[in-house]
Amino acid sequence: MRIAVLCSGGDAPGMNACVRAIVRAGISAGHEVIGILRGYSGLLREEFFLNEQGQPRMSLRSVSDIARRGGTILHTSRCEEFYTESGQKRAAEILRKYKIDALIPIGGDGTFHGAVALAKYWDGQIIGCPGTIDNDLLGTDYTIGFATAVHTAVDAVDKLRDTADAHERMFLVEVMGRHSGYIALYTAIAASAEIACIPETPTEVSEIIRQLHELKSRGKTSVMMIVAEGDERGGAAALQKALCENGCPFETRVLALGHLQRGGSPVPQDRLLAARLGDFAVRSILAGKTGCMAGEQRGELVLVPFEQTYAAHKPVPQELVRLLETLAS
Amino acid sequence: MRIAVLCSGGDAPGMNACVRAIVRAGISAGHEVIGILRGYSGLLREEFFLNEQGQPRMSLRSVSDIARRGGTILHTSRCEEFYTESGQKRAAEILRKYKIDALIPIGGDGTFHGAVALAKYWDGQIIGCPGTIDNDLLGTDYTIGFATAVHTAVDAVDKLRDTADAHERMFLVEVMGRHSGYIALYTAIAASAEIACIPETPTEVSEIIRQLHELKSRGKTSVMMIVAEGDERGGAAALQKALCENGCPFETRVLALGHLQRGGSPVPQDRLLAARLGDFAVRSILAGKTGCMAGEQRGELVLVPFEQTYAAHKPVPQELVRLLETLAS
Amino acid sequence: MRIAVLCSGGDAPGMNACVRAIVRAGISAGHEVIGILRGYSGLLREEFFLNEQGQPRMSLRSVSDIARRGGTILHTSRCEEFYTESGQKRAAEILRKYKIDALIPIGGDGTFHGAVALAKYWDGQIIGCPGTIDNDLLGTDYTIGFATAVHTAVDAVDKLRDTADAHERMFLVEVMGRHSGYIALYTAIAASAEIACIPETPTEVSEIIRQLHELKSRGKTSVMMIVAEGDERGGAAALQKALCENGCPFETRVLALGHLQRGGSPVPQDRLLAARLGDFAVRSILAGKTGCMAGEQRGELVLVPFEQTYAAHKPVPQELVRLLETLAS
Amino acid sequence: MRIAVLCSGGDAPGMNACVRAIVRAGISAGHEVIGILRGYSGLLREEFFLNEQGQPRMSLRSVSDIARRGGTILHTSRCEEFYTESGQKRAAEILRKYKIDALIPIGGDGTFHGAVALAKYWDGQIIGCPGTIDNDLLGTDYTIGFATAVHTAVDAVDKLRDTADAHERMFLVEVMGRHSGYIALYTAIAASAEIACIPETPTEVSEIIRQLHELKSRGKTSVMMIVAEGDERGGAAALQKALCENGCPFETRVLALGHLQRGGSPVPQDRLLAARLGDFAVRSILAGKTGCMAGEQRGELVLVPFEQTYAAHKPVPQELVRLLETLAS
Repeated sequence: MRIAVLCSGGDAPGMNACVRAIVRAGISAGHEVIGILRGYSGLLREEFFLNEQGQPRMSLRSVSDIARRGGTILHTSRCEEFYTESGQKRAAEILRKYKIDALIPIGGDGTFHGAVALAKYWDGQIIGCPGTIDNDLLGTDYTIGFATAVHTAVDAVDKLRDTADAHERMFLVEVMGRHSGYIALYTAIAASAEIACIPETPTEVSEIIRQLHELKSRGKTSVMMIVAEGDERGGAAALQKALCENGCPFETRVLALGHLQRGGSPVPQDRLLAARLGDFAVRSILAGKTGCMAGEQRGELVLVPFEQTYAAHKPVPQELVRLLETLAS
Repeated sequence: MRIAVLCSGGDAPGMNACVRAIVRAGISAGHEVIGILRGYSGLLREEFFLNEQGQPRMSLRSVSDIARRGGTILHTSRCEEFYTESGQKRAAEILRKYKIDALIPIGGDGTFHGAVALAKYWDGQIIGCPGTIDNDLLGTDYTIGFATAVHTAVDAVDKLRDTADAHERMFLVEVMGRHSGYIALYTAIAASAEIACIPETPTEVSEIIRQLHELKSRGKTSVMMIVAEGDERGGAAALQKALCENGCPFETRVLALGHLQRGGSPVPQDRLLAARLGDFAVRSILAGKTGCMAGEQRGELVLVPFEQTYAAHKPVPQELVRLLETLAS
Repeated sequence: MRIAVLCSGGDAPGMNACVRAIVRAGISAGHEVIGILRGYSGLLREEFFLNEQGQPRMSLRSVSDIARRGGTILHTSRCEEFYTESGQKRAAEILRKYKIDALIPIGGDGTFHGAVALAKYWDGQIIGCPGTIDNDLLGTDYTIGFATAVHTAVDAVDKLRDTADAHERMFLVEVMGRHSGYIALYTAIAASAEIACIPETPTEVSEIIRQLHELKSRGKTSVMMIVAEGDERGGAAALQKALCENGCPFETRVLALGHLQRGGSPVPQDRLLAARLGDFAVRSILAGKTGCMAGEQRGELVLVPFEQTYAAHKPVPQELVRLLETLAS
Repeated sequence: MRIAVLCSGGDAPGMNACVRAIVRAGISAGHEVIGILRGYSGLLREEFFLNEQGQPRMSLRSVSDIARRGGTILHTSRCEEFYTESGQKRAAEILRKYKIDALIPIGGDGTFHGAVALAKYWDGQIIGCPGTIDNDLLGTDYTIGFATAVHTAVDAVDKLRDTADAHERMFLVEVMGRHSGYIALYTAIAASAEIACIPETPTEVSEIIRQLHELKSRGKTSVMMIVAEGDERGGAAALQKALCENGCPFETRVLALGHLQRGGSPVPQDRLLAARLGDFAVRSILAGKTGCMAGEQRGELVLVPFEQTYAAHKPVPQELVRLLETLAS
């Protein structure tokens, strides 16, 4: 078989570990693995990864020592054209032209929407791997990159805590998550933050002010608040403004972590998840499966139809929302 | 209620995050939390953590900013005396003297053996938290400290890979695990090591030599081998000797990571697990439970009778043993 | 003698290591060390660090294990009142009241201005230590905190490079330095950035655009630009806007590192510098010196009159400006 | 001109940053740079670095994004043959055969001995760069790799401190330095260790025991001792034995950091030093210089004849020996 792999959408740490597992699992099972560069857009432009002999085929060696690297050796992109019917038809033709039997796209919900659209015009097998720091895909407990993003955010909050303590200030730290509070909630608990503002729960300024007064009255001199970029107040800077206008009892500072959360060497948890899912994606293809994402649920590897992965909003665990309140007490 | 907490056995990163959660959960539910210093040995010597007012009672403030610290503010120890009947009787008396209603010991199997023995002479409630880097307790998927130990080991192997590549050498890296291959196996996969030698599977020198020749013939110039200290060949140095005497095709070096794996700021995964289990232990006590470890299985919080946690050897996942072979191909 | 120490102005990693050295050097020479909390403002409010016995005196033990912590256990602040004559007079009175013989303020140029003003009304000895991440004080090659700030910035740029490469983008990373390009220049060279925009050299948008086109034509697919917050174009966001309006050939993203650069465990270089300068400050006081900053020039410890430390702008090394151009070629 | 570069001896973090600077400085001045693989041994085997077009010539692109990587893309080795007359003659012939005008070897004293021997049979220019973690070369204040080795060692001691505190133990941490106490001394001060045992000063067991009793009597419950591998007692394990046999008042553990100190991403200080020295080496060659090491003394770039770099033992700063004693008080 000839199996192609690509990364699409925002990059996520661990994508390389996933590519490595796909290449190693594919080759060790006696198949050929093709790396498509720059996601769907590179597919439309017929751009392939060249191995050390200059051939458009990934070798065992071409993935040596990449698992610990951030970013992706295949590069990634967002592709407008692919989201048109003509784009999808052309992509299908190209896949046929290069005699590709199966495709493993690594990415998030946009990537999987694309996969579903492609399947209308192409009858090769498609198994996706969840590569996105947001952890917003249903059907898998964790996505590749999420653990590293949380690690980076927690490390940043730890650093800010030093300077917040020294100056007795409050920091509003904005983390990624346009529609999801996962990174914010995990970061808040792991970094011992006092408050998390997430899209999933209402952010009442008056209630926060009340809480801050209580924290102050109990002797807290520094406060860390984690704000998901998608919080309905409009992110950390907007929230800071609202708090200041309503009598915030602390001097405040804002930091938006932005793309820092996408970079860096993936943490072991992400490398392991990526390796397991990449290997499982190949095995699923060899078992004849298609139209699904390879995911992990409660420790087990599972296949989940693409449509289910983005059918609804993935709720944050209420247990953790409650836990944060208890710990911040 | 008056709830006591102690750390016992080898320290594990995340113990502080667990103590913090216990203190915050206990106090926020209206109860008193007592910190016992130096494990069972400190209990026998009636040594308690003093808060900022010098009282033997933990305050909200006494656990401020500790979750990110390695080690444990309660200190820990191994205690011979407690493993005698007279020691256990005296410990029970002391717990009665201080009117302690419930005890939360954080530690590994030795700690839980102690808890079971204590329960023969004391009728307070006991709920344990799994704090050990080895991840060798049945009834919980992960123990507090395991993820950080793997992180530290992977970081070390990443560093050694640089110098192994530069010199085209093989490194044998010894990680902790007297009876368990968990750290070795997770480290090997996450760090892209070629081979793991663990107590759970036979380590045939001739088979390893064969594998090394194969790796060499495929062009590998550096090799990383992860050896659990409890591997039946007797650790990394013993294995190195055996390999060299049997025609190892690579120049070799050994590094034993030792106590490095116990230290350092706990990774977010451990801080989160510690917070969840500490909070759950308190809630379990308030619900009248006793004689159990608070654990996490497939994402769910569970109570597991102490006796079950050490009743048998916790097997390493065969899926991962197979995965390592595929990836090292 | 009774020697007081305080931290003032923005906090800098390494301040704790400096406090530790002052306390240890003072006590081991047979003197008493008093810790003043919250800088000049705490001095005016007579706030002192209490040791483990509750006394307003620092003990050997009160500085145990603090050298590796960010922030400062003495806390810091900026104090309006102290910059008035009446504030300075009152501070002098308080120092006399507590029979303080010598003062070691740790901070930047504002702190040293304050020291000079205080000396008009107080005849105790004053020796300052340069604690500021900006490295903008004349008379010392490096200030305490600078190396850590560069380390944090380089680590961030390394992380962003991963994602920049994956997406083939340009990042504008804003680092601290209201009047100084030190952090920007050092970060740019150490992180292999292509361009640095600093207050000391003109930032011509058209010239940058030309350079970017050249980089693109040579095959560069990702670019890192380091922008000092005090660059005359007004920081990274303003520069991004100007570049985009003038035909920037790369897709761009901005990240402002902000207070991240102040936090975190100080790097060894800062801990060592802090220890050397703290010890030297004490020895200078014992030798009868006053009115000077303890600095390091070309490896040697030196005393520099406060007035000279802020008399002029500290120029960035032209050698490094040239080097950056060569390396980015 | 055709300038060749090679790495020789033990690898050191920062070698890649140095290679990058040499390639960029050489090419930007209009010259050709050849990368010799595996040091002098690769020279004898005529092994060259191939660029992306398969040519034995380094391109700007072949050094993209390498400055932050540990190890060396040129690989390194120790070469017996080169230390014979016939080996040196053959090396000279090969350099003539490939029309190489100048050679930049990066390494330590063995490397520079080799350079001096080669110069007897080859009349090309030779300028060396000091790449060794030991910082044992005269004529430069710091060598490339030293700062990173100290960083790694300090990070390890910080981690061990956590577990030492939790258990109230003493750790003997062995760091590199067969003849030099530089790494041990810098690590000890930066990591707040209590004692350093280095080759340069006598290590009296009875005196250490006395000191340990004093520390214990002052209430210290954990102690960190840094031992250079070349300490005259024979390293950490030998010292531990001697201490235990002579009544050590602490429970002890040993950790040898070994090759960990060679690996990892170079810290900014090393990347900067490597860039400056690599660039300066090229400029020195273009200025007609030969037979020297490019070094940095008191902030200035200098050329030092090879023979002087290993003519005597480089003494450790007595100021720091004294400082350690003061701080450990």
